[in-house]
Amino acid sequence: MKEFELINQLFKPLVKNSVISQDLEGDVAKIILEKDKELVISKDMICEDVHFYRNDGGYKIASKLLRANLSDIASSGAKPLYYMLGFSKTNDQKFIQDFVLGLRDAQKLFDISLIGGDTISLKKDTNPLFFSLTIFGIAKKDKILSRKNAQEDDLIFVSGSIGDAFLGLNLLQKTEFVKQFNFNEERQKYLLDRHYFPTPRIDLGQELIVNNLSKCAIDISDGLLADLNQICRASNLSAEIYLDKVPNFITKKLDYSLAQNLINQGDDYELLFSASEENFEKVMLLQEQLNLKISYIGKIIKKSNCDNLVTIYENQSKSKKLNFSKYGYEH
Amino acid sequence: MKEFELINQLFKPLVKNSVISQDLEGDVAKIILEKDKELVISKDMICEDVHFYRNDGGYKIASKLLRANLSDIASSGAKPLYYMLGFSKTNDQKFIQDFVLGLRDAQKLFDISLIGGDTISLKKDTNPLFFSLTIFGIAKKDKILSRKNAQEDDLIFVSGSIGDAFLGLNLLQKTEFVKQFNFNEERQKYLLDRHYFPTPRIDLGQELIVNNLSKCAIDISDGLLADLNQICRASNLSAEIYLDKVPNFITKKLDYSLAQNLINQGDDYELLFSASEENFEKVMLLQEQLNLKISYIGKIIKKSNCDNLVTIYENQSKSKKLNFSKYGYEH
Repeated sequence: MKEFELINQLFKPLVKNSVISQDLEGDVAKIILEKDKELVISKDMICEDVHFYRNDGGYKIASKLLRANLSDIASSGAKPLYYMLGFSKTNDQKFIQDFVLGLRDAQKLFDISLIGGDTISLKKDTNPLFFSLTIFGIAKKDKILSRKNAQEDDLIFVSGSIGDAFLGLNLLQKTEFVKQFNFNEERQKYLLDRHYFPTPRIDLGQELIVNNLSKCAIDISDGLLADLNQICRASNLSAEIYLDKVPNFITKKLDYSLAQNLINQGDDYELLFSASEENFEKVMLLQEQLNLKISYIGKIIKKSNCDNLVTIYENQSKSKKLNFSKYGYEH
Repeated sequence: MKEFELINQLFKPLVKNSVISQDLEGDVAKIILEKDKELVISKDMICEDVHFYRNDGGYKIASKLLRANLSDIASSGAKPLYYMLGFSKTNDQKFIQDFVLGLRDAQKLFDISLIGGDTISLKKDTNPLFFSLTIFGIAKKDKILSRKNAQEDDLIFVSGSIGDAFLGLNLLQKTEFVKQFNFNEERQKYLLDRHYFPTPRIDLGQELIVNNLSKCAIDISDGLLADLNQICRASNLSAEIYLDKVPNFITKKLDYSLAQNLINQGDDYELLFSASEENFEKVMLLQEQLNLKISYIGKIIKKSNCDNLVTIYENQSKSKKLNFSKYGYEH
C-alpha cells in the first residue's frame, strides 16, 4: 500500500477535526488554545522485541501504545485531546489494519483524535518495527500535577491494583512464578487484559487537580518503587511505604517475597500521588465517584541520608524494615 | 550510560526553558500560547539505512533531522521554537555525543530548544537506529501557509537551487552521473554540505505570510515535481513549469536529461510557493533582504484532465512539452 493510500484509507477515518489535522494533507497540524489554558505534551517511542512482539498483533500493540501515552497525560491531570503518530510500515496488511482498529477503538473510548504524523518504510520487513506517539492534552494554566510537587508529611496514594500487568506478562511467558497461583480462566483473562489494555486514570488525574486535592502525581510505568523514587528525587524528599497496604490481585496483605515481584515491575499505569492529610477523606471519596479503588500506602518524609530514597516497612507499625534486591525497572 | 545520566549530562544542556520542558524531569512538556497565536506542529521519523547511515556519524544525522523538521515549520510560515526528541540508544558513546553536538549546533543556529522526549534501548546494537522528532512553531492565528491554498493564475516560485542535495548524495556514492561534471574540491564541499546540512527557509516562510505575499507553500522534501504535484492535488488545480527557469547548480538553462535527475529527487528543503502576479515584484525583492535566490519557474492553472497534474515545458514559449519517466520520490 502506498503512503497516500495508507493515509487516505486507514488513517483519515481516525481524524475528527479537519482544521487541526489539516486532513493529514499538510506537513503540520495546528492547535489553538483558549485563554488561561495550557497544552501538555508527551512523547513516547516503542520498538519491537523491546516493548512489544509482532506476534501480539497490531490491535494490541496500538491499544497499549495509545493507552500508555494517555497515562502520561493522566498523570498531569490534563484532558487528552489529540495525538500524532509515527508509523513504521510492514508488508503485513493485516497487521496494519489491526493496528488502525486498535487506534480507532482506543481513541473512541478516550475521546481523542489523530491530527498528524509520519509513516516510514523499513529497509527490510524483518527489521524491528517501531512506533512513536506524541500526545496532547489541555489543562488550566498552572494547574498540572507534577512529580516534583510532593510535600513533607503528604500521604501517598495509589489507584487500582499493583502488579497485574506483570502477572499478565508471566501468564504469557508461562513462568513458574505464576503457575503457583493456579488462576482460573476468568482471572487469567483479567490479568492479560491488564497487560495489553492498561487503563489510563484520566478522570482521577483531573479530579485531583481540579479539586485541589493533590499537586503531585506520576503514572507507574517503571514499577511502584521506581516511580515513587522519581517523585522523591524530583521533590527532594524521601518516602516510606507500608507493604501490607499495597493493593494487589493476589493477597490482602502483601508480603516480602511477592512484593519483590509485584512492586518492582512496570506497566501498571496506575496513578501514584500524594496529598496532605487533611484531604484524606476527600481523596477516599473519589473511589465511589470514579468507581476506582484508591489505597493509602505510605508517607512523604524529610529527605533521608539513606542510599534509597524509599524505605519499605512490613506495615505501618514500622517494626520491620525490608530490603529489596531490585529497585524498579531500569531502561 | 543509564537513561538518567544520559538525560542529565547530555540532553539537559539543550534545554533553554525549564518551565516548558519541566527540566526534562517529568513525562510531559507544557506550552502556553499568547492570544491570537496558534501552535504549528510537525512530526518526523528517520531510520538507519533508509534515511541515514550510521557511518555518517551522529553529528550529521542529528543536524539533518533537526533541519529537515525545521523546514516543515518554515513551509507553514511559523516561527520554530521547541522540539521533542525520540532517541534510540546505541553502545557507541561517541555517536551519542556527536548526535548531541549536532542538535546543539543546529538549535543554536535556529534559536530553538529541546523540551522533552523519550529514549529507548534497542534489543541488539546492530538493529537499525531510529529517531523521532516533534517540532513546534508559533504563528499568528489563521496566518499559515498551506499547500492547499494555491489559486488559479498564481505564479510559482522556488527558493535556492534544486538538486544540490542529490548531487551531494551522488558524490558520496561516487556515481558515474556525477563524475561527468568533474567538480573541484570547493564545489564538492558545497554539495556535500547541501546534502548533510540543508537550510530550512524559515525567514522566507515568515516574510511570505506576514506580508501577505503568499498563502501557499510546501518544502521540497520528495522532489520539485512530486511536491508541486502535492500542491496541485491539495488545491485541486494543475501547474505548468518552464524547465529553463529551474535554478540549479550546474547550468543556466536546465535541459531534459539533467532535469530528469535534479527535479525528481528529494531533500532540497527549499520552499516552493505560489503568489499572485501582482506580488511578483515584492517577492523578487525578498531576495536581497534575505540574501536568498528566488526563481519564478511556472504557473498554477485550471485543473487539467491529464494524467499528470504538472506539465513540464522546455521554456515559457511552451512550444515543447517534456515527459518524465519518473515523477518524484515515492516513499
